[in-house]
Amino acid sequence: MGVLGTGMVGVTIADKLLELDYEVMMGSRSSINERALEWSKSKSNKAKIGNFNQAAAFWNILFLCVKGESALDVVKSIDTANIRGKTIIDISNPLDFSKGMPPFLIPTQTNTNSLGEEIQKALPEANIVKALNIVSSSIMVSKQKPGGNPTMFISGNNSKAKQEASTILRDFSWDDIIDLGDITTARGTEMILPLWVRTMLVFGHGDFAFKVSR
Amino acid sequence: MGVLGTGMVGVTIADKLLELDYEVMMGSRSSINERALEWSKSKSNKAKIGNFNQAAAFWNILFLCVKGESALDVVKSIDTANIRGKTIIDISNPLDFSKGMPPFLIPTQTNTNSLGEEIQKALPEANIVKALNIVSSSIMVSKQKPGGNPTMFISGNNSKAKQEASTILRDFSWDDIIDLGDITTARGTEMILPLWVRTMLVFGHGDFAFKVSR
Repeated sequence: MGVLGTGMVGVTIADKLLELDYEVMMGSRSSINERALEWSKSKSNKAKIGNFNQAAAFWNILFLCVKGESALDVVKSIDTANIRGKTIIDISNPLDFSKGMPPFLIPTQTNTNSLGEEIQKALPEANIVKALNIVSSSIMVSKQKPGGNPTMFISGNNSKAKQEASTILRDFSWDDIIDLGDITTARGTEMILPLWVRTMLVFGHGDFAFKVSR
Repeated sequence: MGVLGTGMVGVTIADKLLELDYEVMMGSRSSINERALEWSKSKSNKAKIGNFNQAAAFWNILFLCVKGESALDVVKSIDTANIRGKTIIDISNPLDFSKGMPPFLIPTQTNTNSLGEEIQKALPEANIVKALNIVSSSIMVSKQKPGGNPTMFISGNNSKAKQEASTILRDFSWDDIIDLGDITTARGTEMILPLWVRTMLVFGHGDFAFKVSR
């Protein structure tokens, strides 16, 4: 598996994938990224590091774990040959913190568009699956989900890629997965972020998830 | 109680309020609105009809049940003297169906703004509480909520108005109420609508609600 991004989300996903016994390459802008080196040092020899293109080239499933504001630049830096037919689980959100808390969504990437769609357009030969962007990083991978069995939504144009993503989501202990449809449905899950942020501010923590109660 | 609007949401709320033994005036543009007459004919003498100003004048708690696209025009048609200090439970959503299904949100009333905020600005002497806008009309008032105990969010600037709204929400069988904060937090609940619509399209029905699983 390839993990694009060395922040908290990237490290959390990469650690979980190692725990699940996958080989993992953490990709960053430079193959000698300090945080990626730090991460790999303390891990088994299944933990590898490289640049974004190396992470894309050698693994068939990639997690996009960079900040929303950088996501398009990162995916555009990857050679088409390295990404063709790959499944990309897109965890990014088009959050704009330039006016402080709470953030809003980048206006050109919401409502009638989404960051998920923009990433799919930037990588037409890859199969983007939007998922995991609606919870904090610890909840993405925790064995015990808050409240028992919350919902994870997936969005994407390619059925096989969504099946692959669903298998990993079940490995991440998500048992209630709703396939919303094509990548345009990522608008819905990205637009839940403002409610997530406000709920987090009320609780004082992000230890919760959303459930479609039915 | 006053109910502004004679559509499915207005009728559902008005019927529930009668069931709870409140006097209810259904308000519409004209005091001889055909659907309001139809509604009141089959009800007890606690069911009254009038125009928007009459409904506002005689009751201290009002439900705003008109379509999002009409909501601002409706509230602006009400005299300040009739609305001063009143609690308005705003169920409207800024949905734009002009491009068909799925709708998007009216761009000027989302993300960095909301319809709830616009209504509060239009009626500065009333106390707007955004609530109930995130479920279908039958779920707003049903005794058995889907999945047991889903969440209802409230947003508003005035604590007393939010307490009044919460009391009614509990009468409507909502037991898990989260007060998100001031009226700007209505952005969060209005922005969940695209996800609600997409989930409804997957299920083929609207018999569900959202739960903050924690």
